[in-house]
Amino acid sequence: MIGVFDSGLGGLTVLKEIEKQIPDEDYIYLGDTLHVPYGNRSDEAIYDLTSKACDFLFTKGCSLIILACNTATAKALRRLQQEYLPNHFGSDHKNNILGVIRPVAEYVAQKSSGGIGVIGTRGTINSEAYVVELKNQNESLRVVQQATPLLVPLIEEGWAKSVEIDTILAKYLKELDKRGKVKALILGCTHYPLIIDKIRVQKPDCFIPNPGEIVAHSLHDYLLRHPEYQNKKNKPITEYYVTDFSENFNEIAEQFLNKKININKVAL
Amino acid sequence: MIGVFDSGLGGLTVLKEIEKQIPDEDYIYLGDTLHVPYGNRSDEAIYDLTSKACDFLFTKGCSLIILACNTATAKALRRLQQEYLPNHFGSDHKNNILGVIRPVAEYVAQKSSGGIGVIGTRGTINSEAYVVELKNQNESLRVVQQATPLLVPLIEEGWAKSVEIDTILAKYLKELDKRGKVKALILGCTHYPLIIDKIRVQKPDCFIPNPGEIVAHSLHDYLLRHPEYQNKKNKPITEYYVTDFSENFNEIAEQFLNKKININKVAL
Repeated sequence: MIGVFDSGLGGLTVLKEIEKQIPDEDYIYLGDTLHVPYGNRSDEAIYDLTSKACDFLFTKGCSLIILACNTATAKALRRLQQEYLPNHFGSDHKNNILGVIRPVAEYVAQKSSGGIGVIGTRGTINSEAYVVELKNQNESLRVVQQATPLLVPLIEEGWAKSVEIDTILAKYLKELDKRGKVKALILGCTHYPLIIDKIRVQKPDCFIPNPGEIVAHSLHDYLLRHPEYQNKKNKPITEYYVTDFSENFNEIAEQFLNKKININKVAL
Repeated sequence: MIGVFDSGLGGLTVLKEIEKQIPDEDYIYLGDTLHVPYGNRSDEAIYDLTSKACDFLFTKGCSLIILACNTATAKALRRLQQEYLPNHFGSDHKNNILGVIRPVAEYVAQKSSGGIGVIGTRGTINSEAYVVELKNQNESLRVVQQATPLLVPLIEEGWAKSVEIDTILAKYLKELDKRGKVKALILGCTHYPLIIDKIRVQKPDCFIPNPGEIVAHSLHDYLLRHPEYQNKKNKPITEYYVTDFSENFNEIAEQFLNKKININKVAL
């Protein structure tokens, strides 16, 4: 069983792609809707919240967890791998946690040698996690970043198709351009695939892949290399959990998945 | 000592007015920055979080707490007064909790007999707390509401003076107008006083008071009627607490108070 964790419901864009590419596994999705959004929270808070989420998912029977949240990956993944896993499962543990930043950085670094842009929450951008991973792939890559913190609330409030999101997006991309020309753009937040068409229209000469597809493909590869995490099922099921039944979570979930789902509430 | 609680730092607009009108008291400000924003969270979550905040403020020595947060007032105040206070302090308790909705509703109901508009978070609007309080004052009042959930992130991200907030505000106010003509407008969220000039420009014929001033005036009256909560000091102090040192909390705090402050972190 594979766990998919996000600060809220944005990670459903990642889960959707994973289910498409690996349809024969059981999944548990957990969204920390009591603390969403993570974008501006401290490193300490994000580590604490993410480790509690991992406790829950491992206890439910997951052996592999995908941190679908960029902010959690940027600020907590390394420490979880170094501290949390050995503390919980010993040094020869089988359970593992993977993030979304490395696969996307690897993919984009291979496909593009021009300048690479990254947009994301303030937390993701300030962490420089994408810069580090891209430079690990190719030291000579030029990377420019721009925090775009208003895109998440605009998308969550249903303004994804509005003119206003166009003008705010344009303002952010102008700031990015000021920092240097880019040939590829990384969407460093799980919400942004919902406005990928708008972003591609404003950056027509840019390579802008869907990060959910890359993460799903990379996970597929990982499972082939690590069959111990595979658990093929004839009738796989996906369970959904949130930490709070927030006012409009049903509409948001449907917006991300294009279908109705049953969601359970859990206290971490 | 008087406690002032808000989901985040927006309540500093209320504290600032209270300190202006009642300068000789000690205050403790608590912002639940680990869970901000409350606007879309469930009733249950808001009650739990607010009761923990009250635990903290009473334990620190406050005898009176102002819920500066409209969403917390709308969704938790009555239950806190009915369940929390008797459970914690017995039926003849002296400690008390006050909200921001009743004083503003009373004031506006006295000043305006035409249609009254209310803007606020989705939680505040859906609770109908302002509608109930206004009707309690004058059953014949006509009240129309509009949730304006994007205003908080726009203000917190420093877009309070932007053209984009004008267009989004105009869209919200147009929706409000469709529901009926209003002669007075209640700013049902602690962040909105930061854009009161913009709102007044877009609604020039409307009576739009600053809710912080009304709450401070009402608290002043309350203290005169209840001297047991008074604690006049020659050198009063204000302490500030948050539940998370979020990425940009210092800039936000300065934006609200126009001064630098020392903030402490606390776990509730």
